[in-house]
Amino acid sequence: MPRPDYRRSSPPPKPPPPGSEDWPRPWAQMKYHSYHPAVYPNMVGMVSSDAGAGDLVSIFDKEGRRFGAGYYNPRARVPLRVLHHGDEDFTEDSLDDLLRQAIRLRKNIIKLDADTEAYRVVHSDADDLSGLVVDRYADTLSIDITTLGAWRRIQRWLPILHEELGTTQQVIRVDPDIALIEQIRIGDVPEATQPGPRSVKIREHDVRYVVNFEAGHKTGFFCDQRDNRLKLGRLAHGRVLDLCTYTGGFALSAKVLAKCEDVTGVDLDEKAIAQAKQNANLNQVRVDWVHADAFTWGRQMQRNGQSWDTLVLDPPKLIHHRDNQEEGIFKYRDLNSLALQLVKPGGLFVSCSCSGLLGVDDFEQLVIGAAHRQNRKLQILDRTGPGLDHPVMSNCPESRYLKVLWARVI
Amino acid sequence: MPRPDYRRSSPPPKPPPPGSEDWPRPWAQMKYHSYHPAVYPNMVGMVSSDAGAGDLVSIFDKEGRRFGAGYYNPRARVPLRVLHHGDEDFTEDSLDDLLRQAIRLRKNIIKLDADTEAYRVVHSDADDLSGLVVDRYADTLSIDITTLGAWRRIQRWLPILHEELGTTQQVIRVDPDIALIEQIRIGDVPEATQPGPRSVKIREHDVRYVVNFEAGHKTGFFCDQRDNRLKLGRLAHGRVLDLCTYTGGFALSAKVLAKCEDVTGVDLDEKAIAQAKQNANLNQVRVDWVHADAFTWGRQMQRNGQSWDTLVLDPPKLIHHRDNQEEGIFKYRDLNSLALQLVKPGGLFVSCSCSGLLGVDDFEQLVIGAAHRQNRKLQILDRTGPGLDHPVMSNCPESRYLKVLWARVI
Repeated sequence: MPRPDYRRSSPPPKPPPPGSEDWPRPWAQMKYHSYHPAVYPNMVGMVSSDAGAGDLVSIFDKEGRRFGAGYYNPRARVPLRVLHHGDEDFTEDSLDDLLRQAIRLRKNIIKLDADTEAYRVVHSDADDLSGLVVDRYADTLSIDITTLGAWRRIQRWLPILHEELGTTQQVIRVDPDIALIEQIRIGDVPEATQPGPRSVKIREHDVRYVVNFEAGHKTGFFCDQRDNRLKLGRLAHGRVLDLCTYTGGFALSAKVLAKCEDVTGVDLDEKAIAQAKQNANLNQVRVDWVHADAFTWGRQMQRNGQSWDTLVLDPPKLIHHRDNQEEGIFKYRDLNSLALQLVKPGGLFVSCSCSGLLGVDDFEQLVIGAAHRQNRKLQILDRTGPGLDHPVMSNCPESRYLKVLWARVI
Repeated sequence: MPRPDYRRSSPPPKPPPPGSEDWPRPWAQMKYHSYHPAVYPNMVGMVSSDAGAGDLVSIFDKEGRRFGAGYYNPRARVPLRVLHHGDEDFTEDSLDDLLRQAIRLRKNIIKLDADTEAYRVVHSDADDLSGLVVDRYADTLSIDITTLGAWRRIQRWLPILHEELGTTQQVIRVDPDIALIEQIRIGDVPEATQPGPRSVKIREHDVRYVVNFEAGHKTGFFCDQRDNRLKLGRLAHGRVLDLCTYTGGFALSAKVLAKCEDVTGVDLDEKAIAQAKQNANLNQVRVDWVHADAFTWGRQMQRNGQSWDTLVLDPPKLIHHRDNQEEGIFKYRDLNSLALQLVKPGGLFVSCSCSGLLGVDDFEQLVIGAAHRQNRKLQILDRTGPGLDHPVMSNCPESRYLKVLWARVI
């Protein structure tokens, strides 16, 4: 990312001396220029004595100019999280406004309610609300909190969220490891300890799904693939295979939206396949669900001479850290090589990667390489990402993760 | 692009000696391995004596293995254009099949007829039909030919195209410079010398346009932006500015699809603006059309303190050759910097580039840099390309060109 350059049309007024009486309290000063929302301990300079954990503080740059505002949490791994860049006053009300803007983007600009009952309402730093992720599933909010700053304010924000969205209940989740790091005490927020709904049913583009909130489960639903599921519902044809189907999203889109006859979904996760079956029943359709390792099963199908007109490969995240990047790339290459062998000549291949550490061009090169090694070409129709409710803020580009390549295999 | 690796499951049979009687005539041999469709003179080896200009020839690799098939044109800048990779027989009928597959992709897989009367039916190398570009505008085909191979077959293909698409007339265009290079004689194809329609009216997603075929004109319509016009029709709000509007596509989408009240379209091309007015009349809407240089006019608006809720910047191609890359990048930066200053806080900014020499990541970095230098962030909602009727073949990645960045300006 290019370094920001704080050019102004007129020279800035001489700033007051560091820690001056004029600095609105509480405040923190940064030692280095950075536009990134996460400010690490070595970058934090002086902090006013009244700045407490979870406080919204004014932020000054190393020259003593007002730089912005953010959450302060002295003993966290990231003690300063910048929410706002600019020299205006930024208050608790301004934070509420950020929340309202995030809601307005989904409701009034992207107009998601017309398509779905499931979408991301707040996407953490991409909405300038560091550590707050809110998904909406029909009347229920699924809230994930990873900063003390967001935690301290969630009780203030719940009524705003429910009022603006017309929701009535919530499930609040804090990862225990993060709670320790951020010094979040679950008992402080009664709404986080009350039992929420076990599951809700939602509709997305004429397909219905069960979303599961039971403790220890993921919801079983990824709203980030919404537009891609719709696209598959338009492009799928003939015999359809959904490898790593999870709870059946792409398979159901092929069945319900594209009305494909012969649809198979494969996943290694037994609970996910059980939920996929439940989803199929809810839509009153029949899909062949296979509980198996995609690679082992695919290899067997290849030996049996099976092939498909439409194949979706949407594996779980295979690159978790820079340390296992090569291993992950190897797995992507292997899975894509195998999957390509199962696509009929001229068939549609949809390959996904949700590993943020694999760039969009590198991913495309990987899939193209797998095809060329088999003496096949890819007629690339499109490259897509997640829905517009999962934006990326320009000062935090590493939050981009989902890539989907759409191609005919020639 | 990774080099193809022609691995086979079993060792290949010993190939016949170069130029053997077994080689299906006419044939050409390649001196080097390349998967690219364009084979330059220094890469062409022996050629059978009966290979004539425009012939479909079998292609053998340097080891004498059958490699594929393509057009031969000994005196052209690109004497060999590979249309098919593989060791099967490839005949004139196989070429017809490629044409039918291209049509089938648009009609049966992408199902474009439901959305529009204007789409690309054949996209040259991206459909393995080097040198043939066919756009469909209602009942009329607009055909652009850049290889002798495609030229020699267009009379054979016209009945196939018209029958499959239900079209009735055509406009055939060959650039005079290319005709010289490829030794195309216009008189050889009567259909290319007959006067075609002067214009046709088309509908795309409930917006109507005039498409102009008069000699010396561009059609005034770019079907590659179809999905992006629809997307703007969904996202546009408030006061809308379409900078470099050309014949008004984005402005009309904001007006007709998004029902925005206050829409302005600016372009320096007087004929384009005249056609934009005609398009607005056809849709019975009022848009403020401004015939002016986008940069000069924008600067004036900035001085007047004007700003917009939605701004589209879709300049013509600004990088034509590697030689003027820096100059082009400079112009993109300048235009984006100015445009960003005209977007209200929280407003939508849609920035396009159709320069193939500017990569998608580099373009994004350029726009982000322009925003950060103004101390503004971009909440990036999406990155899109052309519609699916403009694919990219994996062995010809440099044909990718159109990039559209969708962002809220924070």
